[in-house]
Order: sequence, then C-alpha cells, then structure tokens
Amino acid sequence: MPRARQTPGRHDPRQAPRLRGKLTVEIGEAAALTEAGADLLSQIDACRSLSEAARRLGFSYRRAWMLVDAMNRRWPTPLVTTSTGGKHGGGSTLTDFGLRVLRGYRDVQLQLEAMLDQATTDFQQGVKPV
Amino acid sequence: MPRARQTPGRHDPRQAPRLRGKLTVEIGEAAALTEAGADLLSQIDACRSLSEAARRLGFSYRRAWMLVDAMNRRWPTPLVTTSTGGKHGGGSTLTDFGLRVLRGYRDVQLQLEAMLDQATTDFQQGVKPV
Repeated sequence: MPRARQTPGRHDPRQAPRLRGKLTVEIGEAAALTEAGADLLSQIDACRSLSEAARRLGFSYRRAWMLVDAMNRRWPTPLVTTSTGGKHGGGSTLTDFGLRVLRGYRDVQLQLEAMLDQATTDFQQGVKPV
Repeated sequence: MPRARQTPGRHDPRQAPRLRGKLTVEIGEAAALTEAGADLLSQIDACRSLSEAARRLGFSYRRAWMLVDAMNRRWPTPLVTTSTGGKHGGGSTLTDFGLRVLRGYRDVQLQLEAMLDQATTDFQQGVKPV
C-alpha cells in the first residue's frame, strides 16, 4: 500500500481537517429530504419556477422534477404544487407544509453547523500529527 | 406533477420523520474521512486484516484497498499500515495516528447524534401536517 506524503501542508491552514455534516430527513428508512432537495425547495420558493430553480442549481429539469415528485410522495402532504396555464404560464410554489418542512430543515442545519464549529477545535487538536 | 398520497401512515410511528446526519472530515475541500471510511477503520482495528474488514462490510477488496489508500494519501501521515509476510501472512493495522483520527470521528459522531436526537421533537412538531 503506498505511503502517504509525509511533508506537505502541515502548517497550511487549508490543510486543517474540517468537519462537515450532511443532514437528511428520513421517513420509514427512506430519504424524504436531502441537502439537494432542500436547496431545490429554497430555489422554487425564490423563483416560483421549477425549470428556473433547476437551472440555478445546475440540475437537469428531469432530475429536479423527479426529486420534487419523490419528496411529494414521501411526505404525508405535498411540499410543492404546480399550476399550469394562466397569465404567466403556470409555476411551482411551496405549500405551507413545504415551507414548514424547509424551515425545520434549515433550523436543524444551523444547529448542526454550530455544533460542528464547536467540535472542530477539539477534533483538530486530537488529530495533530506527532 | 402527481400528488402525494394523503392518508397513509399519519399515525404510524415508522412514518415519523427522523433526522440523520452524515459526518465527513474534509481536508482541502476533499473528503478525508467518511462514514464508510470510519467503518472500514473500525473493522481493520477489530480484525487486523483488510480483506476480512472488507468482507464484513460487504465491500469488494478493491474498494476497501482504494478507500484506505485515499485516506492514507489525504492525511499528513498514514492511518493504516500493511505488513507483508511473517508468521500470519501479514495484515493491516491502524497507526496511532489512525486510531486518534478514528476516535475523534466517533466522538463527533456521538455529539452529532445527541444533537439530532434533541432536535427531533421540535422538528416533528413543526412539520405535523395540519
């Protein structure tokens, strides 16, 4: 097995280990809301259009549509509704329930980041190479 | 967009949303230790053999080897050493540094789980369907 490089970056702050937590909400063992899903909900809420939300995130329309569809099916009531026609050709919006789920997710995400920030110093001390 | 099912599972505890956090240690934007990596380190520590560790986790030997190699390269000193030959045909063990990294990871993982347990009740209250 090849050995690791021994020297570079020991004093380079970019090389300090950082803690990252990815939050997922599961319902019945299956992912009901992931980071990608939450980002998609945020963009739908911001621009009221699934295709524009997908574009901003660099998702294909198909991927975005399937993600919304999976979330809508996983939760007891839909997170996103889509209207067709009308003056502006329809659009996608978060339901009240979808807004509450997204806010709940963001709240926990902030708590998680605060916890990891706090834990980082101890972690970095503990793994300093001797 | 198909609508979600409205009825099932509303009072089924298996259907209550649960929070799950996946911890990754990054060095210079790249993953240096993931859940899979930590589980592999734990198994190497338990059975002192990379092939046995891989088998227990259902990883191919190739996947396990590449994961160890990537971790060894990412950290300033290796997490795993492999010896060849000898009475028992060689084996893999965690270095002292590898043990410290693994312990640090497990510590933070426990803190993360405790934090998510605490946050779950509020989250579930906030996303009760009306």
